[in-house]
Amino acid sequence: MISERLTLLRNEMKKRNIAVYIVPTADFHGSEYVGEHFKARQYITGFTGSAGTAVITMTEAGLWTDGRYFVQAAAQLSGTTVQLYKMGQEGVPSIAEYLRQTLKEGETIGFDGRVVNAAWGNSLLEIAREKNGSLYVDEDLTDIIWGDRPPMSKAPATIFDIKYTGKDTQDKLSDVRKVMKEKNTDIHLITSLYDIAWLLNVRGGDISYVPVVLSFLSLTQDTCTWYVQEEILTAEFKEYLDKYNITTKPYESFYDDVKSIPAGKKVLMDTSIANYKICNNIPAEVEVINEPDPTVYMKSIKNEVEITNIREAHKKDAVAMIKFMYWLKTNVGKIPMTEISAADHLADLRAGQEGFLDLSFDTICGYAEHGAIVHYSATPESDIALKPEGLLLVDSGGHYLEGTTDITRTFALGPVTDEMKTDFTRVLRSHISLANAKFLHGCTGVNLDILARAPFWDVDMDYNHGTGHGVGYVLNVHEGPNSFRWKPSPNHTKETILEEGMVTTDEPGIYIEGKYGIRTENELICRKGVKNQFGQFMYFENVTYVPIDLDAVAPEQMTSVERKQLNDYHAMVFDTMSPYFEGEELEFLRKYTRAI
Amino acid sequence: MISERLTLLRNEMKKRNIAVYIVPTADFHGSEYVGEHFKARQYITGFTGSAGTAVITMTEAGLWTDGRYFVQAAAQLSGTTVQLYKMGQEGVPSIAEYLRQTLKEGETIGFDGRVVNAAWGNSLLEIAREKNGSLYVDEDLTDIIWGDRPPMSKAPATIFDIKYTGKDTQDKLSDVRKVMKEKNTDIHLITSLYDIAWLLNVRGGDISYVPVVLSFLSLTQDTCTWYVQEEILTAEFKEYLDKYNITTKPYESFYDDVKSIPAGKKVLMDTSIANYKICNNIPAEVEVINEPDPTVYMKSIKNEVEITNIREAHKKDAVAMIKFMYWLKTNVGKIPMTEISAADHLADLRAGQEGFLDLSFDTICGYAEHGAIVHYSATPESDIALKPEGLLLVDSGGHYLEGTTDITRTFALGPVTDEMKTDFTRVLRSHISLANAKFLHGCTGVNLDILARAPFWDVDMDYNHGTGHGVGYVLNVHEGPNSFRWKPSPNHTKETILEEGMVTTDEPGIYIEGKYGIRTENELICRKGVKNQFGQFMYFENVTYVPIDLDAVAPEQMTSVERKQLNDYHAMVFDTMSPYFEGEELEFLRKYTRAI
Repeated sequence: MISERLTLLRNEMKKRNIAVYIVPTADFHGSEYVGEHFKARQYITGFTGSAGTAVITMTEAGLWTDGRYFVQAAAQLSGTTVQLYKMGQEGVPSIAEYLRQTLKEGETIGFDGRVVNAAWGNSLLEIAREKNGSLYVDEDLTDIIWGDRPPMSKAPATIFDIKYTGKDTQDKLSDVRKVMKEKNTDIHLITSLYDIAWLLNVRGGDISYVPVVLSFLSLTQDTCTWYVQEEILTAEFKEYLDKYNITTKPYESFYDDVKSIPAGKKVLMDTSIANYKICNNIPAEVEVINEPDPTVYMKSIKNEVEITNIREAHKKDAVAMIKFMYWLKTNVGKIPMTEISAADHLADLRAGQEGFLDLSFDTICGYAEHGAIVHYSATPESDIALKPEGLLLVDSGGHYLEGTTDITRTFALGPVTDEMKTDFTRVLRSHISLANAKFLHGCTGVNLDILARAPFWDVDMDYNHGTGHGVGYVLNVHEGPNSFRWKPSPNHTKETILEEGMVTTDEPGIYIEGKYGIRTENELICRKGVKNQFGQFMYFENVTYVPIDLDAVAPEQMTSVERKQLNDYHAMVFDTMSPYFEGEELEFLRKYTRAI
Repeated sequence: MISERLTLLRNEMKKRNIAVYIVPTADFHGSEYVGEHFKARQYITGFTGSAGTAVITMTEAGLWTDGRYFVQAAAQLSGTTVQLYKMGQEGVPSIAEYLRQTLKEGETIGFDGRVVNAAWGNSLLEIAREKNGSLYVDEDLTDIIWGDRPPMSKAPATIFDIKYTGKDTQDKLSDVRKVMKEKNTDIHLITSLYDIAWLLNVRGGDISYVPVVLSFLSLTQDTCTWYVQEEILTAEFKEYLDKYNITTKPYESFYDDVKSIPAGKKVLMDTSIANYKICNNIPAEVEVINEPDPTVYMKSIKNEVEITNIREAHKKDAVAMIKFMYWLKTNVGKIPMTEISAADHLADLRAGQEGFLDLSFDTICGYAEHGAIVHYSATPESDIALKPEGLLLVDSGGHYLEGTTDITRTFALGPVTDEMKTDFTRVLRSHISLANAKFLHGCTGVNLDILARAPFWDVDMDYNHGTGHGVGYVLNVHEGPNSFRWKPSPNHTKETILEEGMVTTDEPGIYIEGKYGIRTENELICRKGVKNQFGQFMYFENVTYVPIDLDAVAPEQMTSVERKQLNDYHAMVFDTMSPYFEGEELEFLRKYTRAI
């Protein structure tokens, strides 16, 4: 099946004299999760993972993907003629290296200019030019051969009420226009679905795991033009837009409209998000000010209405998680369970909560050695039964009308080894140390990260990922610019100062290959503390209300300060969540939030 | 006396039509400590402190200095007509603000272009231009009126043997020339006395507290020209220079020579160090690549010979410090002592060590409330008697042939309050936490600083200074680019990664105004630890071998881990230093390095 599709694609390539065709996993907006319509890379390779890029020549086809998908990709690519390129492994060429090796003098690289961001597109152009070749970017070749391609999503758009957003669209538009003025720019093009949804206070359902509306936005001091599939807009919705002088135009007309931006205008946009076709369509006489959208920073600082809602969302999420924990630990070994069935049960519990919208990402439910695979996603092929022993790592989250959650808990399903307890306790000490940080305003995640790393670094250990990421508000669960990491992020010359209202995850982990994985993750809201002669002190409000499994804790490996911090956390969890439980579940909650 | 000098200066200003004349505390090389010849600001204002800038108009004279000198400056300026401007105080204009307020249309700002760095000079030029005025920079007016001005120092230059430097000048020159090539530059001008001394493996005695030689250096791939007061060079020294093809030219001829750099050449230099006159003399057709001198980074990484020597220097310094501690704590209240006499006694003990060269900075010896004045320097007017009670803060250091030391200890001279003990213990916990850091290679001081801050921030406290600075090797005691600080330094876009061989101080403190000050400072050498799948781990070797006064410690306020770390440190101190002591001093050392 895959080789037939490749043959059809190569026929189209041949007609257009394209030597190499690139199919990334992307929509037209640089979204992390994409809708069904956009799964062209899956269509052409058969690999269903969430990340990967296909590169196809007349004789070869390759799939580049990262460590979390090596096993799954190898299985799914078997028999397809598509070669697996394990990114980051020694001796494996990057896509750029492969292209430089493969492309011959005068040859053409092809891709759909709408699914490659401008920065990447420009680097592909450079590679083509080195061989005196060119790019072919005006057609989506997969679309031609993909007979039963799902249409682009046209999910209904809804107005996200002020009781959820806490800030009127008019005020948000004013804030953005003020920044445009400060930066001396005339037009601001926004192509990130998250940022458009935040700015217009709208939500939708066009991509997986994030309730947004496929659209583009063009903003000036006087106008706001929303390029959207207009047929999804109800009369009420149109009225809402009229109120803010937001005019709509057809989604696809955005590309033509940017062609007619008058010479001399200054356009504010982020070319690491905006796609290649858009940037290519902007006339050369227009000056592009390439900077992050101002909305990125604005939406990272949650207002008090949002914070109040976020607490409610986390209570709902905690009800589901605590019920899941009770169900899991009570029934494992007694009734059949697998990674997938357990994840499904948790999803059902979340779905049962009022205001539930969707999961916020694909649940990671990894038992035993699967827990060691960071971002493991169980497939029917990999799925294994849960036994009443060892550790189960569950990283999951949901969208509710009141907010988005992201939580990881690792559960002891029965007896655990001393080694597991030591590792679990180390992760806990790391997690709790960061959660209890107090610091002066002005600190960034780079200043604080060592609080989480120190329990690892002290014993020559580490985890190969950031300690935490920002969390969107009924938007992408992974949101910038705030984060906890020790290495300055390569793309940012200046790290982001942690401000009151920013929400960041705290998720250290230990992954013992072939054995087990442990991660503990809460969300922390940055808050203002005391202000005195030394400055404004800041602290974190812990907004995740779920017990950390005491069955895997070695209390004697914690200092008295650490034990007190854990006990204080659990007391807070019991106070917050006990009103939602009764009977055996309440007793379970009491037991698992006890002081140690 | 001062007003007479000001009158003479104003006469010279009038002749040249200069409206404002600026006299900073500086030599021609941006040195932190300057020689007697360069104390023009002291001459014209009467203020003897180490930092301050005089600004003189026809009707006003002002001295700008920082918090550590407010008291001393107020006393010394009394009756001089020189106004004190307390830098950083609310409502006090900066020099730039004052100039903008004071300078009238078309007026001239004057200063000696050799004592103002190029970056500052350019900002003064901008202020003058705003008023359509100009600069007058070609004369040192203070020199004209300063009858008995001490001549410029011509201390002997000595060759610093390979057994001290560990690296031949030829190899150092090659390293620098390699960087010049990488940066595609033709000529490298070095004006920092520290960097010239390091590069040529020479030492001298031309400025206070740093054994360097007044000179400039011009380097190309083929030539190395040292602009130096040639009369100080012995025949042996000239032979040494010949060996490396280093030619010499008269010190002052540097200014003329830079005028004749051919057009089109690229010159590597640091305009935040090089003086205004030099940069002004460089022809406009020469391209200046304004970057830190490559030697700054190179000399910060001490080689193994230097490290072995540094340990020896610190043992010598510790002999002096431990003898001082014994003398102080045994005799206080029994024999007369003051801040100055105690500091003198300590200086004598250091001077008694073989290979001693000089103090590395002006000793800070602050008793009781004087301890709260950061960088307090006792004067005959401020000097107070030491009593057998309370706390004495002593921050001091020495140059030995084998290295430079910087150490702070706070001593209990008798009974101390619970408040003092709590604060002393907090400083100790902070100090010891950083000293025991383990971290992955790639970390900077910005990553680690919170280890020292956390014990303060946890209780809404802080200290308003960096946690530590790099230390030179028989060079300036304050050396970049390594440091411990939580705010990225404003001048560096990229923080410096801590590399094996870098030496950095660890010196948190608490300063209770009007009561007492506490600081504990050791020097830490960065070393490589375990290398495994997570990367290269790093740790610190503690190279200061002096007890921390246990009489001021509250052990019950320390965790068991912290107590163990302190006990381990004291055991190491005893092991290292006990061979140098006997009798009562040995028993004293044993007592003050006991486990708690």
